[in-house]
Amino acid sequence: MTDVATARRSRITPEREAELYGAVLDLLREVGYDALTMDAVAARTRSSKATLYRQWGGKPELVVRAMRHTKPGAVGEIDTGSLRGDLHALVSREDDCVMEQNSALMRGLAMAMHTNPDLRQVFREQLIEPEMAEFGRVLQRAVDRGEVRPDCPALDFVVHMMVGGFATRALIEDQPPTRAFLTSYIDAVVLPALGAPTH
Amino acid sequence: MTDVATARRSRITPEREAELYGAVLDLLREVGYDALTMDAVAARTRSSKATLYRQWGGKPELVVRAMRHTKPGAVGEIDTGSLRGDLHALVSREDDCVMEQNSALMRGLAMAMHTNPDLRQVFREQLIEPEMAEFGRVLQRAVDRGEVRPDCPALDFVVHMMVGGFATRALIEDQPPTRAFLTSYIDAVVLPALGAPTH
Repeated sequence: MTDVATARRSRITPEREAELYGAVLDLLREVGYDALTMDAVAARTRSSKATLYRQWGGKPELVVRAMRHTKPGAVGEIDTGSLRGDLHALVSREDDCVMEQNSALMRGLAMAMHTNPDLRQVFREQLIEPEMAEFGRVLQRAVDRGEVRPDCPALDFVVHMMVGGFATRALIEDQPPTRAFLTSYIDAVVLPALGAPTH
Repeated sequence: MTDVATARRSRITPEREAELYGAVLDLLREVGYDALTMDAVAARTRSSKATLYRQWGGKPELVVRAMRHTKPGAVGEIDTGSLRGDLHALVSREDDCVMEQNSALMRGLAMAMHTNPDLRQVFREQLIEPEMAEFGRVLQRAVDRGEVRPDCPALDFVVHMMVGGFATRALIEDQPPTRAFLTSYIDAVVLPALGAPTH
Protein backbone atom coordinates (compact mmCIF):
# COMPACT_ATOMS: atom_id res chain seq x y z
CA MET A 1 0.00 0.00 0.00
CA THR A 2 1.48 3.39 -0.94
CA ASP A 3 1.41 6.37 1.40
CA VAL A 4 -0.86 8.19 -1.00
CA ALA A 5 -3.35 5.29 -0.96
CA THR A 6 -3.25 5.22 2.84
CA ALA A 7 -3.82 8.95 3.05
CA ARG A 8 -6.71 8.72 0.58
CA ARG A 9 -8.42 5.91 2.37
CA SER A 10 -7.87 7.37 5.84
CA ARG A 11 -10.64 9.88 5.12
CA ILE A 12 -13.31 7.23 5.62
CA THR A 13 -13.92 5.04 8.67
CA PRO A 14 -13.06 1.30 8.61
CA GLU A 15 -16.77 0.51 9.07
CA ARG A 16 -17.73 2.61 6.06
CA GLU A 17 -14.90 1.04 4.06
CA ALA A 18 -16.12 -2.49 4.95
CA GLU A 19 -19.66 -1.52 3.98
CA LEU A 20 -18.46 -0.21 0.62
CA TYR A 21 -16.43 -3.35 -0.12
CA GLY A 22 -19.42 -5.51 0.83
CA ALA A 23 -21.57 -3.63 -1.67
CA VAL A 24 -18.93 -4.00 -4.40
CA LEU A 25 -18.74 -7.78 -3.82
CA ASP A 26 -22.55 -8.06 -3.83
CA LEU A 27 -22.65 -6.26 -7.18
CA LEU A 28 -19.84 -8.45 -8.48
CA ARG A 29 -21.84 -11.56 -7.58
CA GLU A 30 -25.05 -10.10 -9.06
CA VAL A 31 -23.87 -8.69 -12.39
CA GLY A 32 -20.19 -9.70 -12.84
CA TYR A 33 -17.17 -7.49 -13.38
CA ASP A 34 -17.92 -6.25 -16.88
CA ALA A 35 -21.44 -5.05 -16.07
CA LEU A 36 -20.45 -3.52 -12.73
CA THR A 37 -20.38 0.28 -12.97
CA MET A 38 -19.09 2.97 -10.64
CA ASP A 39 -22.59 4.50 -10.95
CA ALA A 40 -24.13 1.35 -9.47
CA VAL A 41 -21.58 1.29 -6.64
CA ALA A 42 -22.27 4.96 -5.93
CA ALA A 43 -26.05 4.41 -5.90
CA ARG A 44 -25.87 1.27 -3.77
CA THR A 45 -23.60 2.89 -1.19
CA ARG A 46 -25.08 6.40 -1.30
CA SER A 47 -21.67 7.82 -2.29
CA SER A 48 -20.75 10.25 -5.03
CA LYS A 49 -18.85 8.83 -7.98
CA ALA A 50 -16.26 11.58 -7.48
CA THR A 51 -15.59 10.25 -3.97
CA LEU A 52 -15.15 6.69 -5.26
CA TYR A 53 -12.70 7.78 -7.93
CA ARG A 54 -10.81 9.99 -5.48
CA GLN A 55 -10.55 7.22 -2.88
CA TRP A 56 -9.72 4.27 -5.14
CA GLY A 57 -8.73 5.61 -8.54
CA GLY A 58 -11.01 3.43 -10.64
CA LYS A 59 -13.07 0.28 -11.00
CA PRO A 60 -10.22 -2.28 -11.16
CA GLU A 61 -8.61 -0.79 -8.02
CA LEU A 62 -11.91 -0.71 -6.11
CA VAL A 63 -12.81 -4.31 -7.04
CA VAL A 64 -9.37 -5.72 -6.24
CA ARG A 65 -9.30 -3.84 -2.93
CA ALA A 66 -12.72 -5.31 -2.08
CA MET A 67 -11.48 -8.84 -2.93
CA ARG A 68 -8.40 -8.28 -0.82
CA HIS A 69 -10.63 -7.25 2.07
CA THR A 70 -12.22 -10.76 2.08
CA LYS A 71 -8.83 -12.37 2.78
CA PRO A 72 -8.77 -13.85 6.28
CA GLY A 73 -5.56 -12.32 7.65
CA ALA A 74 -2.08 -12.29 6.22
CA VAL A 75 -0.41 -15.49 5.02
CA GLY A 76 2.84 -14.28 6.56
CA GLU A 77 1.35 -14.43 10.07
CA ILE A 78 1.00 -18.21 9.83
CA ASP A 79 3.92 -19.83 11.67
CA THR A 80 3.20 -23.34 12.96
CA GLY A 81 6.79 -24.59 13.01
CA SER A 82 6.58 -26.83 9.90
CA LEU A 83 5.89 -26.19 6.22
CA ARG A 84 3.15 -28.82 6.20
CA GLY A 85 1.51 -27.14 9.21
CA ASP A 86 1.80 -23.72 7.58
CA LEU A 87 0.30 -24.85 4.25
CA HIS A 88 -2.53 -26.74 5.94
CA ALA A 89 -3.25 -23.65 8.08
CA LEU A 90 -3.22 -21.55 4.92
CA VAL A 91 -6.09 -23.51 3.33
CA SER A 92 -7.99 -23.85 6.63
CA ARG A 93 -8.48 -20.16 7.37
CA GLU A 94 -11.91 -20.22 5.74
CA ASP A 95 -14.61 -22.83 6.23
CA ASP A 96 -15.76 -24.68 3.11
CA CYS A 97 -18.82 -22.50 2.65
CA VAL A 98 -16.88 -19.22 2.71
CA MET A 99 -14.18 -20.80 0.54
CA GLU A 100 -16.80 -21.77 -2.03
CA GLN A 101 -18.23 -18.23 -2.12
CA ASN A 102 -14.83 -16.57 -2.39
CA SER A 103 -13.62 -19.05 -4.97
CA ALA A 104 -16.71 -18.34 -7.11
CA LEU A 105 -15.92 -14.61 -6.88
CA MET A 106 -12.28 -15.27 -7.69
CA ARG A 107 -13.20 -17.41 -10.72
CA GLY A 108 -15.50 -14.66 -11.98
CA LEU A 109 -12.67 -12.16 -11.60
CA ALA A 110 -10.20 -14.50 -13.33
CA MET A 111 -12.63 -14.69 -16.26
CA ALA A 112 -12.85 -10.88 -16.39
CA MET A 113 -9.06 -10.60 -16.24
CA HIS A 114 -8.92 -12.50 -19.50
CA THR A 115 -10.38 -9.52 -21.39
CA ASN A 116 -9.38 -6.62 -19.07
CA PRO A 117 -5.60 -6.03 -19.06
CA ASP A 118 -6.02 -3.13 -16.59
CA LEU A 119 -7.77 -5.41 -14.10
CA ARG A 120 -5.06 -8.05 -14.65
CA GLN A 121 -2.35 -5.53 -13.84
CA VAL A 122 -4.04 -4.20 -10.68
CA PHE A 123 -4.86 -7.75 -9.59
CA ARG A 124 -1.24 -8.77 -10.01
CA GLU A 125 0.17 -5.71 -8.25
CA GLN A 126 -2.32 -5.51 -5.38
CA LEU A 127 -3.18 -9.14 -4.74
CA ILE A 128 -0.78 -11.63 -6.30
CA GLU A 129 2.51 -9.87 -5.59
CA PRO A 130 1.80 -9.10 -1.90
CA GLU A 131 0.54 -12.68 -1.38
CA MET A 132 3.59 -14.09 -3.13
CA ALA A 133 5.89 -11.99 -0.95
CA GLU A 134 4.18 -13.31 2.19
CA PHE A 135 4.22 -16.83 0.77
CA GLY A 136 7.93 -16.33 0.17
CA ARG A 137 8.43 -15.72 3.89
CA VAL A 138 6.61 -18.98 4.78
CA LEU A 139 8.86 -20.84 2.30
CA GLN A 140 11.99 -19.04 3.52
CA ARG A 141 11.32 -20.26 7.06
CA ALA A 142 11.01 -23.82 5.69
CA VAL A 143 14.38 -23.39 3.97
CA ASP A 144 15.88 -21.95 7.18
CA ARG A 145 14.58 -24.96 9.16
CA GLY A 146 16.22 -27.28 6.62
CA GLU A 147 12.86 -28.67 5.38
CA VAL A 148 13.45 -27.48 1.81
CA ARG A 149 16.79 -27.18 0.02
CA PRO A 150 17.53 -23.56 -0.88
CA ASP A 151 18.18 -24.54 -4.51
CA CYS A 152 14.98 -26.64 -4.87
CA PRO A 153 13.61 -25.75 -8.34
CA ALA A 154 9.98 -26.22 -7.21
CA LEU A 155 10.33 -23.12 -4.99
CA ASP A 156 9.66 -21.03 -8.11
CA PHE A 157 6.38 -22.83 -8.84
CA VAL A 158 4.50 -23.01 -5.54
CA VAL A 159 1.84 -20.56 -6.73
CA HIS A 160 1.42 -22.51 -10.00
CA MET A 161 0.90 -25.73 -8.05
CA MET A 162 -1.63 -24.15 -5.69
CA VAL A 163 -3.58 -22.45 -8.51
CA GLY A 164 -3.67 -25.82 -10.29
CA GLY A 165 -5.34 -27.38 -7.27
CA PHE A 166 -7.91 -24.59 -6.86
CA ALA A 167 -8.74 -23.98 -10.52
CA THR A 168 -8.76 -27.53 -11.86
CA ARG A 169 -11.05 -28.69 -9.09
CA ALA A 170 -13.52 -25.91 -9.84
CA LEU A 171 -13.38 -25.94 -13.61
CA ILE A 172 -12.84 -29.53 -14.62
CA GLU A 173 -14.31 -31.53 -11.77
CA ASP A 174 -17.17 -29.07 -11.31
CA GLN A 175 -16.63 -29.08 -7.56
CA PRO A 176 -15.52 -26.22 -5.36
CA PRO A 177 -12.22 -26.69 -3.56
CA THR A 178 -12.67 -27.95 0.00
CA ARG A 179 -10.23 -28.05 2.89
CA ALA A 180 -10.11 -31.85 2.68
CA PHE A 181 -9.25 -31.73 -1.03
CA LEU A 182 -6.64 -28.99 -0.62
CA THR A 183 -4.87 -30.64 2.31
CA SER A 184 -4.57 -33.94 0.39
CA TYR A 185 -3.34 -32.01 -2.66
CA ILE A 186 -0.69 -30.30 -0.50
CA ASP A 187 0.42 -33.66 0.94
CA ALA A 188 0.41 -35.43 -2.44
CA VAL A 189 1.86 -32.72 -4.68
CA VAL A 190 3.23 -29.54 -3.09
CA LEU A 191 5.31 -31.02 -0.26
CA PRO A 192 6.79 -33.90 -2.34
CA ALA A 193 7.69 -31.50 -5.18
CA LEU A 194 9.50 -29.34 -2.61
CA GLY A 195 11.12 -32.41 -1.06
CA ALA A 196 9.60 -31.39 2.30
CA PRO A 197 8.30 -33.78 4.99
CA THR A 198 4.74 -34.95 4.28
CA HIS A 199 3.82 -36.00 7.82
CA MET B 1 -16.95 -41.81 -30.08
CA THR B 2 -20.31 -43.59 -30.31
CA ASP B 3 -21.38 -45.50 -33.40
CA VAL B 4 -24.17 -42.99 -33.94
CA ALA B 5 -21.67 -40.12 -33.95
CA THR B 6 -19.40 -42.01 -36.36
CA ALA B 7 -22.30 -42.73 -38.66
CA ARG B 8 -23.40 -39.11 -38.55
CA ARG B 9 -19.99 -37.71 -39.30
CA SER B 10 -19.16 -40.25 -41.98
CA ARG B 11 -21.57 -38.42 -44.30
CA ILE B 12 -19.03 -35.62 -44.84
CA THR B 13 -15.47 -35.91 -46.13
CA PRO B 14 -12.48 -35.38 -43.79
CA GLU B 15 -11.50 -32.32 -45.88
CA ARG B 16 -14.94 -30.78 -45.45
CA GLU B 17 -14.88 -31.60 -41.75
CA ALA B 18 -11.47 -29.91 -41.32
CA GLU B 19 -12.74 -26.86 -43.21
CA LEU B 20 -15.77 -26.64 -40.93
CA TYR B 21 -13.69 -26.91 -37.76
CA GLY B 22 -11.33 -24.25 -39.07
CA ALA B 23 -14.25 -21.89 -39.60
CA VAL B 24 -15.58 -22.60 -36.09
CA LEU B 25 -12.17 -21.81 -34.55
CA ASP B 26 -11.88 -18.61 -36.62
CA LEU B 27 -15.29 -17.49 -35.34
CA LEU B 28 -14.31 -18.43 -31.80
CA ARG B 29 -11.23 -16.22 -32.08
CA GLU B 30 -13.22 -13.40 -33.66
CA VAL B 31 -16.31 -13.19 -31.46
CA GLY B 32 -15.82 -15.62 -28.54
CA TYR B 33 -17.99 -18.54 -27.51
CA ASP B 34 -21.02 -16.63 -26.22
CA ALA B 35 -21.48 -14.56 -29.38
CA LEU B 36 -20.78 -17.48 -31.73
CA THR B 37 -24.03 -18.66 -33.36
CA MET B 38 -24.89 -21.70 -35.43
CA ASP B 39 -26.26 -19.21 -37.99
CA ALA B 40 -22.80 -17.64 -38.33
CA VAL B 41 -21.15 -21.07 -38.70
CA ALA B 42 -23.73 -22.05 -41.33
CA ALA B 43 -23.18 -18.80 -43.26
CA ARG B 44 -19.40 -18.95 -43.06
CA THR B 45 -19.26 -22.59 -44.21
CA ARG B 46 -22.15 -22.48 -46.67
CA SER B 47 -23.96 -25.23 -44.74
CA SER B 48 -27.53 -25.43 -43.56
CA LYS B 49 -28.13 -25.08 -39.84
CA ALA B 50 -30.12 -28.32 -39.97
CA THR B 51 -27.02 -30.13 -41.27
CA LEU B 52 -24.87 -28.72 -38.47
CA TYR B 53 -27.36 -29.78 -35.80
CA ARG B 54 -27.77 -33.22 -37.38
CA GLN B 55 -24.00 -33.79 -37.61
CA TRP B 56 -22.93 -32.41 -34.21
CA GLY B 57 -26.01 -32.01 -32.06
CA GLY B 58 -25.41 -28.42 -30.95
CA LYS B 59 -23.02 -25.55 -30.40
CA PRO B 60 -21.08 -26.97 -27.41
CA GLU B 61 -20.49 -30.27 -29.25
CA LEU B 62 -19.40 -28.54 -32.46
CA VAL B 63 -17.00 -26.19 -30.64
CA VAL B 64 -15.44 -28.92 -28.50
CA ARG B 65 -15.06 -31.19 -31.54
CA ALA B 66 -13.30 -28.34 -33.37
CA MET B 67 -10.94 -27.79 -30.41
CA ARG B 68 -10.23 -31.51 -30.28
CA HIS B 69 -9.36 -31.42 -33.96
CA THR B 70 -6.46 -29.00 -33.21
CA LYS B 71 -4.81 -31.56 -30.92
CA PRO B 72 -1.61 -32.83 -32.50
CA GLY B 73 -2.14 -36.59 -32.26
CA ALA B 74 -3.05 -38.74 -29.32
CA VAL B 75 -1.16 -38.48 -26.03
CA GLY B 76 -1.31 -42.27 -25.74
CA GLU B 77 0.85 -42.68 -28.86
CA ILE B 78 3.82 -41.06 -27.11
CA ASP B 79 6.16 -43.78 -25.85
CA THR B 80 9.78 -42.69 -25.44
CA GLY B 81 10.76 -45.23 -22.79
CA SER B 82 10.78 -42.85 -19.80
CA LEU B 83 8.16 -40.72 -18.08
CA ARG B 84 10.35 -37.63 -18.39
CA GLY B 85 10.73 -38.27 -22.12
CA ASP B 86 7.00 -38.83 -22.53
CA LEU B 87 6.02 -35.65 -20.65
CA HIS B 88 8.58 -33.55 -22.51
CA ALA B 89 7.31 -34.99 -25.80
CA LEU B 90 3.78 -34.18 -24.72
CA VAL B 91 4.50 -30.43 -24.39
CA SER B 92 6.73 -30.37 -27.48
CA ARG B 93 4.14 -31.53 -30.02
CA GLU B 94 3.32 -27.92 -30.90
CA ASP B 95 5.78 -25.11 -31.53
CA ASP B 96 5.50 -22.07 -29.25
CA CYS B 97 3.53 -20.06 -31.77
CA VAL B 98 0.86 -22.73 -32.26
CA MET B 99 0.85 -23.36 -28.52
CA GLU B 100 0.20 -19.68 -27.87
CA GLN B 101 -2.70 -19.62 -30.34
CA ASN B 102 -4.28 -22.79 -28.98
CA SER B 103 -3.77 -21.72 -25.40
CA ALA B 104 -5.54 -18.41 -26.12
CA LEU B 105 -8.46 -20.38 -27.62
CA MET B 106 -8.45 -22.73 -24.64
CA ARG B 107 -8.45 -19.84 -22.16
CA GLY B 108 -11.37 -18.24 -23.98
CA LEU B 109 -13.23 -21.52 -23.79
CA ALA B 110 -12.38 -21.95 -20.10
CA MET B 111 -13.89 -18.50 -19.51
CA ALA B 112 -17.06 -19.50 -21.36
CA MET B 113 -17.25 -22.76 -19.40
CA HIS B 114 -17.60 -20.67 -16.26
CA THR B 115 -21.09 -19.54 -17.30
CA ASN B 116 -22.13 -22.41 -19.63
CA PRO B 117 -22.68 -25.67 -17.73
CA ASP B 118 -23.60 -27.48 -20.98
CA LEU B 119 -20.27 -26.51 -22.55
CA ARG B 120 -18.49 -27.59 -19.35
CA GLN B 121 -20.12 -31.00 -19.52
CA VAL B 122 -19.36 -31.59 -23.21
CA PHE B 123 -15.81 -30.31 -22.70
CA ARG B 124 -15.30 -32.71 -19.83
CA GLU B 125 -16.79 -35.70 -21.62
CA GLN B 126 -15.26 -35.12 -25.06
CA LEU B 127 -11.90 -33.55 -24.25
CA ILE B 128 -10.82 -33.95 -20.63
CA GLU B 129 -11.91 -37.54 -20.04
CA PRO B 130 -10.40 -38.99 -23.25
CA GLU B 131 -7.14 -37.05 -22.62
CA MET B 132 -7.06 -38.25 -19.03
CA ALA B 133 -7.56 -41.85 -20.14
CA GLU B 134 -4.63 -41.52 -22.57
CA PHE B 135 -2.59 -39.76 -19.92
CA GLY B 136 -3.40 -42.65 -17.62
CA ARG B 137 -1.77 -45.04 -20.08
CA VAL B 138 1.43 -42.93 -20.15
CA LEU B 139 1.47 -42.99 -16.34
CA GLN B 140 0.66 -46.71 -16.18
CA ARG B 141 3.71 -47.46 -18.32
CA ALA B 142 5.83 -45.40 -15.89
CA VAL B 143 4.43 -47.46 -13.01
CA ASP B 144 5.10 -50.69 -14.95
CA ARG B 145 8.71 -49.62 -15.57
CA GLY B 146 9.11 -48.97 -11.83
CA GLU B 147 9.58 -45.21 -12.29
CA VAL B 148 6.52 -44.34 -10.17
CA ARG B 149 5.19 -46.30 -7.20
CA PRO B 150 1.69 -47.64 -7.91
CA ASP B 151 0.38 -46.10 -4.66
CA CYS B 152 1.94 -42.66 -5.29
CA PRO B 153 -0.77 -40.15 -4.23
CA ALA B 154 0.33 -37.58 -6.84
CA LEU B 155 -0.92 -39.94 -9.59
CA ASP B 156 -4.42 -38.56 -8.92
CA PHE B 157 -3.32 -34.97 -9.48
CA VAL B 158 -1.23 -34.96 -12.65
CA VAL B 159 -3.87 -32.98 -14.58
CA HIS B 160 -4.16 -30.45 -11.73
CA MET B 161 -0.39 -29.93 -11.77
CA MET B 162 -0.29 -29.51 -15.55
CA VAL B 163 -3.26 -27.11 -15.63
CA GLY B 164 -1.55 -25.10 -12.88
CA GLY B 165 1.50 -24.67 -15.09
CA PHE B 166 -0.48 -23.68 -18.19
CA ALA B 167 -3.08 -21.44 -16.54
CA THR B 168 -0.94 -19.64 -13.98
CA ARG B 169 1.65 -18.73 -16.54
CA ALA B 170 -1.01 -17.22 -18.82
CA LEU B 171 -3.15 -15.51 -16.21
CA ILE B 172 -0.79 -14.33 -13.51
CA GLU B 173 2.49 -13.86 -15.32
CA ASP B 174 0.81 -12.53 -18.44
CA GLN B 175 2.92 -14.79 -20.62
CA PRO B 176 1.85 -17.68 -22.79
CA PRO B 177 3.22 -21.10 -21.85
CA THR B 178 6.32 -22.02 -23.86
CA ARG B 179 8.03 -25.36 -24.32
CA ALA B 180 11.00 -24.12 -22.26
CA PHE B 181 8.73 -23.10 -19.39
CA LEU B 182 6.69 -26.30 -19.46
CA THR B 183 9.70 -28.62 -19.58
CA SER B 184 11.28 -26.87 -16.57
CA TYR B 185 7.92 -27.04 -14.78
CA ILE B 186 7.73 -30.79 -15.48
CA ASP B 187 11.28 -31.31 -14.18
CA ALA B 188 10.77 -29.09 -11.11
CA VAL B 189 7.22 -30.08 -10.11
CA VAL B 190 5.54 -32.98 -11.88
CA LEU B 191 8.35 -35.57 -11.83
CA PRO B 192 9.48 -34.83 -8.22
CA ALA B 193 5.86 -34.98 -6.98
CA LEU B 194 5.55 -38.39 -8.66
CA GLY B 195 8.92 -39.47 -7.26
CA ALA B 196 10.07 -40.17 -10.85
CA PRO B 197 13.59 -39.64 -12.23
CA THR B 198 14.21 -36.00 -13.24
CA HIS B 199 17.11 -36.58 -15.60
